[in-house]
Amino acid sequence: MKCSIPKGTRDFLPIEMARRNYIFDTIRQVFKAFAFEPIETPSLENLSTLMGKYGEEGDKLLFKVLNSGDFMKDVDFNQDYHKVAPQICERGLRYDLTVPFARFVVQHRDQITFPFRRYQLQPVWRADRPQKGRYREFYQCDADMIGSPSLLNELELVQMIDLVFRRLGIEVTVKINNRKILAGIADLIGAPDKLVDITVAIDKLDKIGLDNVRAELRERGLEEQQIAALDPIFNLSGTATEKLAQLQSLFANNATGLKGVEEMQTLFSLIEAVKPQCHIELDLTLARGLNYYTGAIFEVKAHNVSIGSICGGGRYDNLTGIFGMPDVSGVGISFGADRIYDVLTELDAFPVELGQSARALIINFGDQEQAYCLQLANELRRASVSTLYYPEAAKMKKQMEFASKKGVPYVLFVGETEVANHTVTVKEMASGQQNTVPFDQVVDLLK
Amino acid sequence: MKCSIPKGTRDFLPIEMARRNYIFDTIRQVFKAFAFEPIETPSLENLSTLMGKYGEEGDKLLFKVLNSGDFMKDVDFNQDYHKVAPQICERGLRYDLTVPFARFVVQHRDQITFPFRRYQLQPVWRADRPQKGRYREFYQCDADMIGSPSLLNELELVQMIDLVFRRLGIEVTVKINNRKILAGIADLIGAPDKLVDITVAIDKLDKIGLDNVRAELRERGLEEQQIAALDPIFNLSGTATEKLAQLQSLFANNATGLKGVEEMQTLFSLIEAVKPQCHIELDLTLARGLNYYTGAIFEVKAHNVSIGSICGGGRYDNLTGIFGMPDVSGVGISFGADRIYDVLTELDAFPVELGQSARALIINFGDQEQAYCLQLANELRRASVSTLYYPEAAKMKKQMEFASKKGVPYVLFVGETEVANHTVTVKEMASGQQNTVPFDQVVDLLK
Repeated sequence: MKCSIPKGTRDFLPIEMARRNYIFDTIRQVFKAFAFEPIETPSLENLSTLMGKYGEEGDKLLFKVLNSGDFMKDVDFNQDYHKVAPQICERGLRYDLTVPFARFVVQHRDQITFPFRRYQLQPVWRADRPQKGRYREFYQCDADMIGSPSLLNELELVQMIDLVFRRLGIEVTVKINNRKILAGIADLIGAPDKLVDITVAIDKLDKIGLDNVRAELRERGLEEQQIAALDPIFNLSGTATEKLAQLQSLFANNATGLKGVEEMQTLFSLIEAVKPQCHIELDLTLARGLNYYTGAIFEVKAHNVSIGSICGGGRYDNLTGIFGMPDVSGVGISFGADRIYDVLTELDAFPVELGQSARALIINFGDQEQAYCLQLANELRRASVSTLYYPEAAKMKKQMEFASKKGVPYVLFVGETEVANHTVTVKEMASGQQNTVPFDQVVDLLK
Repeated sequence: MKCSIPKGTRDFLPIEMARRNYIFDTIRQVFKAFAFEPIETPSLENLSTLMGKYGEEGDKLLFKVLNSGDFMKDVDFNQDYHKVAPQICERGLRYDLTVPFARFVVQHRDQITFPFRRYQLQPVWRADRPQKGRYREFYQCDADMIGSPSLLNELELVQMIDLVFRRLGIEVTVKINNRKILAGIADLIGAPDKLVDITVAIDKLDKIGLDNVRAELRERGLEEQQIAALDPIFNLSGTATEKLAQLQSLFANNATGLKGVEEMQTLFSLIEAVKPQCHIELDLTLARGLNYYTGAIFEVKAHNVSIGSICGGGRYDNLTGIFGMPDVSGVGISFGADRIYDVLTELDAFPVELGQSARALIINFGDQEQAYCLQLANELRRASVSTLYYPEAAKMKKQMEFASKKGVPYVLFVGETEVANHTVTVKEMASGQQNTVPFDQVVDLLK
C-alpha cells in the first residue's frame, strides 16, 4: 500500500511545527495583549451559509461534504453536476474565517458585549489548483474588532502589525489606503459605477506597471479621458500629509473622497503619536481585492525579500448584513502564516533553538542508576525542562548519536560516582564542555 | 436568512475557548516536558488511507468530500449508494489521529529518528448520531512513542497522566491491564479464538454487571464451562502485586499470559519507585474496545463525578503494518478534552481568571488624555498585560458597565491630574479599592 496525502495538503514534521508554532504564538500573544478574545467555529458549515459569499469562482472552490446515509435518494442525476452537488451535499468546509465570523456574530449577538474583539486561528480549505505557496488547506490568523467606528481601532491594528513583525525580526512596510478615497477618485473621473474595475486594475500596478494598468482600464470600459484623469492620482508626491493635502484640493466638493482624506489624516496623526518602528506608507494605488471594505485598507510587505503581502485587512461597514444584522462596523487584519514562514526561511531568521527536540537527554546506563535517573527526569520535567531518558540501555555511541541527530543541547550522565555523590555530569553538546554539578543545581542550569 | 451550524458541530465563545485552551495548554506543556514533538497531518486524507481501518461501522461514519469539477463524469449512478460514494469522493475527513500517524510514520520514515515521540492536537470528524457529549467534530490529544519496546515508555505515560490531572486539579484513578493477560485468560478457558468476544463483554462489566456479562458471553458462543472458568479471574483479590502472583500460578505454562504478568510486575514496580500522586489500579476487567492493542492498556477515571473514561491508551506492536512497515512497536495515550471539560465544569474547578476578557481597561475621557493613554496601553501590552483602551469617549457609566460585563479586574483612570503628575488611578473591580500610582509602576502592579 502506497502512502500519500491529497494534492495541495501537507504533513508537518516537528521542525516545521516548531517554526509554525513560533509564528502562531507570536501573533497570538500580540492579539491577547490587545485584549482580542479567541473564538472557534466549526470546520463544517451549512453550504447555504457559504454559497454566494465568495463570488462565482469562490462557490466552485468550496469543498463540499457528501451527505451521510443514502445521499442518492430522490435525487435526479440527469442534471448538470452543478445542480446535483447541492442536493447531495448539505455541508461544506470553511473557506475563510470572515463569513463564519459574521455568521457567529449574528447567531450569538445576545451573548456578545460590543465593541467585540475576536481573534481566530484556524485552517481553511479551498479547492484551488495547488501551486508553489498555494495550498488546499492552510491556516488563517484573523483579528477583528466590531461595533466601534473609532479610528483608534485602525491605529491599534497598525500597532499590532508593528509588534508582531518586530518580535519576529522582520522589517516591514505597512501600506495604507482608504476605500472612500478610491470611491472619490472614481467619482472624480466620472466613473462611479466602475469603482470595482478601477480598484482591480490599480491593485495590479506593482505587478504589471502603469502602462498595463491603463490597458486594463481600457479593456474594462473606461474612456481615454477618464484614464487620463487618473494621472494626478499617480503623480501625487511628498509625504503622506502632503499627498493628503493635494488630494483634499483635488476632491473639492466630493464628500466621499473628502471623508476618506479626513480619516487618513486622523489615522496618520494618531500613528505619528505612537511612533511605530515599522515603515508606514500612504499608498493610493493599494486597493485590495475584496469588495466588502469601505474605509481604511492595509497591506504589509517585508523588506529584502520578494514575497507578496504577508498581512492585510481593512474597515468594513456591513459584514453581518448578509446574515440580516445591518450597521455593524468593523475593522480587521489577517496574517498570512505560510508567507511569513517563507519570509523567515529566506531571511534565515528562525531562532535556532526551534530545532531542538528536547533540552536534555539522560543517558541510560542500565538498571543500577535507573531510580536516580527517573528522579532526575522527574525534577526537570516538573520544571518544564523538556527531557528525554533514553528508554533502553543501548550502546553509548548510539545514544550520543541520537542526541546529536535530535539536536539536544545537553546530555546528562549518571554513573555510580554521580549517584554516590548526588551529582550529575552535564555535557554541553555545542562546546563539548563537561561539568559535574550537584543534583539540585541541574534544573537551574538547564532552565 | 437564518443562521445555524450543522448538527453535532459547535461554535466556541471566548469563555469556552479560554477553558478549552487551559486544558489543551496543560496537556501540551506536559507532552513537551516529556520531549514529545508536535506533528500535524492534513484534515483531508485519501479515502483509500482511511477506508477499512475502523471496521465496517467506521467506514460508514467517515465524512467523504465530493471531488471537484465534474464529479459525475463516467460514473454509473444506477448502483447502490455505497458503491457510488467512493467513485465521486476521493478524499475524506480525518476520523482519528492514529491512522494518519501510522501513515505519517511510514511516509516520512527517512526523516524520523527512532525512538520517536510525537504529540498531535487536532480535530477529527465522525458522522455519528449527535447526542449529549458526542460531537461530529471534536479534538483529540494524542501522544505516542514508537520504536522502543521498553516499559519505561509505559511508565512515562503514567507519569504524564499523573502530572496533567494534578495540574488540572482532578483526582483520578489510572486503571491498567495487559492484553497478553487477557489473551492468556482466553487460552486458559480454552477459547483463544474468542479473545475479542471476551474482551468486548468484559469491558462492559462496570456498566452492566457480572450476570449480564455472563449472558453476553453465552450469546457470543462461549460454553458454560468456559464462562465458569473465568470465575477465578473475577475473584482475584488483594493488591496489584498479590493479584499478579495469583495470576502467575493460574497461568502455569501459558507463555503469553505469563509474559503479560511479567510486564505488569515490571511496570508496577517502576510506578511504585516514582510515587505518582494519582491512584493506580490493576484492573483485569479493563479491555478497551480497540483491537490493535497488544500489551499494556490504560484508562483513566475521575473521582467524584460519573463521567466515563477521560484518557486511555496502550501498547500496540504493529500499527504501521497496515501501511507496509511491520514490527514497529509503540505505546500511546489520548486525552479526551471534551470529557475533561465536563469534569472540570461539574467540579467547578476552572481557574476564575479564565473569565477575564482583558486584565485592564483604560477609560477613554477624550482627546485631551489620549496620547498619555495610548502610551500607557503600549507599555502594558508590550509587557503582555492584556489591555483595552475604550475606543470612544463614551459615558463613564457605559464604559464601567462594559468593564464589568467583560470581567475586567482592573480599570485605569487617566484625567488631567494623572497626566500632570505622571500617575494612573487604578481601580480593583472586585474590592472597589482605588489607588493612584506612578505611571512606571502600573506594569508591575498588573503583571
